[in-house]
Amino acid sequence: MIQAKGYAAQDKSSELAPWNFHRREVGPHDIQIAIRYCGVCHSDLHQIRDDWGGATFPMIPGHEIVGIVTNAGTHVKKVQAGQWVAVGNMVDSCRICDNCRQGLEQYCTTHISFTYNSTEQNGLPTYGGYSNIIVVHEDFVFTVSEKLDMSAVAPLLCAGITVYSPLRHWKVGEGHRLAVLGLGGLGHMAVKFGVAFGAEVTVLSTSPAKEADAKALGAHRFLVTRDAEQMKSAAGYFDFILDTVSADHAFDPYLALLRTNGTHIVLGLPSEPATFRLGNIVFGRKSMAGSLIGGIPETQEMLDYCAGHHIVADVELIDMKNIYVAFDRMVKGDVRYRFVIDMATL
Amino acid sequence: MIQAKGYAAQDKSSELAPWNFHRREVGPHDIQIAIRYCGVCHSDLHQIRDDWGGATFPMIPGHEIVGIVTNAGTHVKKVQAGQWVAVGNMVDSCRICDNCRQGLEQYCTTHISFTYNSTEQNGLPTYGGYSNIIVVHEDFVFTVSEKLDMSAVAPLLCAGITVYSPLRHWKVGEGHRLAVLGLGGLGHMAVKFGVAFGAEVTVLSTSPAKEADAKALGAHRFLVTRDAEQMKSAAGYFDFILDTVSADHAFDPYLALLRTNGTHIVLGLPSEPATFRLGNIVFGRKSMAGSLIGGIPETQEMLDYCAGHHIVADVELIDMKNIYVAFDRMVKGDVRYRFVIDMATL
Repeated sequence: MIQAKGYAAQDKSSELAPWNFHRREVGPHDIQIAIRYCGVCHSDLHQIRDDWGGATFPMIPGHEIVGIVTNAGTHVKKVQAGQWVAVGNMVDSCRICDNCRQGLEQYCTTHISFTYNSTEQNGLPTYGGYSNIIVVHEDFVFTVSEKLDMSAVAPLLCAGITVYSPLRHWKVGEGHRLAVLGLGGLGHMAVKFGVAFGAEVTVLSTSPAKEADAKALGAHRFLVTRDAEQMKSAAGYFDFILDTVSADHAFDPYLALLRTNGTHIVLGLPSEPATFRLGNIVFGRKSMAGSLIGGIPETQEMLDYCAGHHIVADVELIDMKNIYVAFDRMVKGDVRYRFVIDMATL
Repeated sequence: MIQAKGYAAQDKSSELAPWNFHRREVGPHDIQIAIRYCGVCHSDLHQIRDDWGGATFPMIPGHEIVGIVTNAGTHVKKVQAGQWVAVGNMVDSCRICDNCRQGLEQYCTTHISFTYNSTEQNGLPTYGGYSNIIVVHEDFVFTVSEKLDMSAVAPLLCAGITVYSPLRHWKVGEGHRLAVLGLGGLGHMAVKFGVAFGAEVTVLSTSPAKEADAKALGAHRFLVTRDAEQMKSAAGYFDFILDTVSADHAFDPYLALLRTNGTHIVLGLPSEPATFRLGNIVFGRKSMAGSLIGGIPETQEMLDYCAGHHIVADVELIDMKNIYVAFDRMVKGDVRYRFVIDMATL
């Protein structure tokens, strides 16, 4: 067993605090990684508080992991010691269901091993990236170009792939009008990718103050959703709305912004059920769709695309001990656009 | 003006009764039709009762119209007197918006002239097919092969195209598992088209008694939705669910039946908003979509397809005076599968 340390929650009402634990020995197909950066995802906070139910403790959150290979199993060919690599939301899956065979491991119908608050295929608990070491099967480890700023790569592993995957699946690009609802960790990556793919990108936000930021990220247009006149004038305008909002919200006002055949793509998981009038999709042959992170081949494709197009997240680097300062600011939306923990400060 | 007669509702609380009115003179591009058959659509009853609001009276319902050309304007080339023709949900549209130019007149963004309870492009009211004569611009008149049973063609103009259009739009066919929710006027046509297009078709129904009927129509499988075991065993099974139910109903149990990338297509307009858990579309990249009737080119395509494949509706022919007997039975679901009025009985 490998001695490791991290920040863990011991139960749903306790705060993250230093905790010593063990990682498994490096097997023939495993890669041992010294974690250098880990992004802070809103779901980290939801899970340590057991907001979605079913949490298991102790829990070490973190699934936007970038680090350096320190050891590799005898059968590992894809990396060598000293190389930068990354790990995202998953560390394994059943590998044999239809979805796994198609590289859609995120929709594995049998058993996904999420990076934390989950179990390995053998049933042992998984622990996330708020830690100094992780051991992962090579098939779930990504290579990262050294051309990129590594701290700014970390958020690509969740916020990045969560927007990249639906944009690719629905073939969003030139000639399309894309609306990005919400300008946070996911939203700011959606603007960058949408612009890179050739779409006309509009940020939809409740706050007029975000217009300058949206434009600085490359957005072509900005729409204040609380302005009834602006909403009315954009009726029937968009081909796609990428909805990154995880808080409960109405859908009818956004469905009205879609043109015929338009698609509203939900990426967040509000706690309340969605409610909308069916006439708002029947008239105009519109769709409301969902999408969850991305598969393993697509995540590597995204990282390679980012290297080729110099795309990374905008981040604020923090020390491990300041995680609750970061959580508080994240909940208020006061971050441009993702906190990343410098794991050297653990 | 042309003297005509029909069955009209004078206001939302009065029953349909004989009414004399006028049709416009036949213009250069108009076709005058002696109506022989008119299908009875559930929306006819909704509209004369003003269930959806905004109704205008007097109202003559009926938008599943088959008849014989008795007169054609000087510029009309597509038909001649004595020929069988049909008219559906629309008698005109703006013709210049993007959707109209693409043959998606049903999604006209300016002004659709529905066949009744609507207005012509010049603002005059439209009156439907529970009448002896109709005058329609040739562009909104369809030709019908004389090979088909004309009374059984009538329901194709609404029930038929409403299911044909989404099956074609989503390219449902060989290799797909299609579920048809509800076995009424729309549902029985969805089974026929789904089977003709090569899909594996399953009828979902609350009533085990409908299994024999479903199989007789060509369905390969039957699932009783009130049977928890059957529902559980079909989890993740279907590529598409065609939802023909116009009553309020839950969606979560059906979303669970979809496989990854599956689509639930809503065709009805329940009065209450749809409510479902977003996790049920995010996990599995599923969609809930809507679809409204079909465009003019696609409706002609459907009628030609039906002629080539000997597909018509299963109908019960009724006399005009028995319309309320038919309405009562329709509301109870006691019809296999569409009432059609023999307009010779007007």
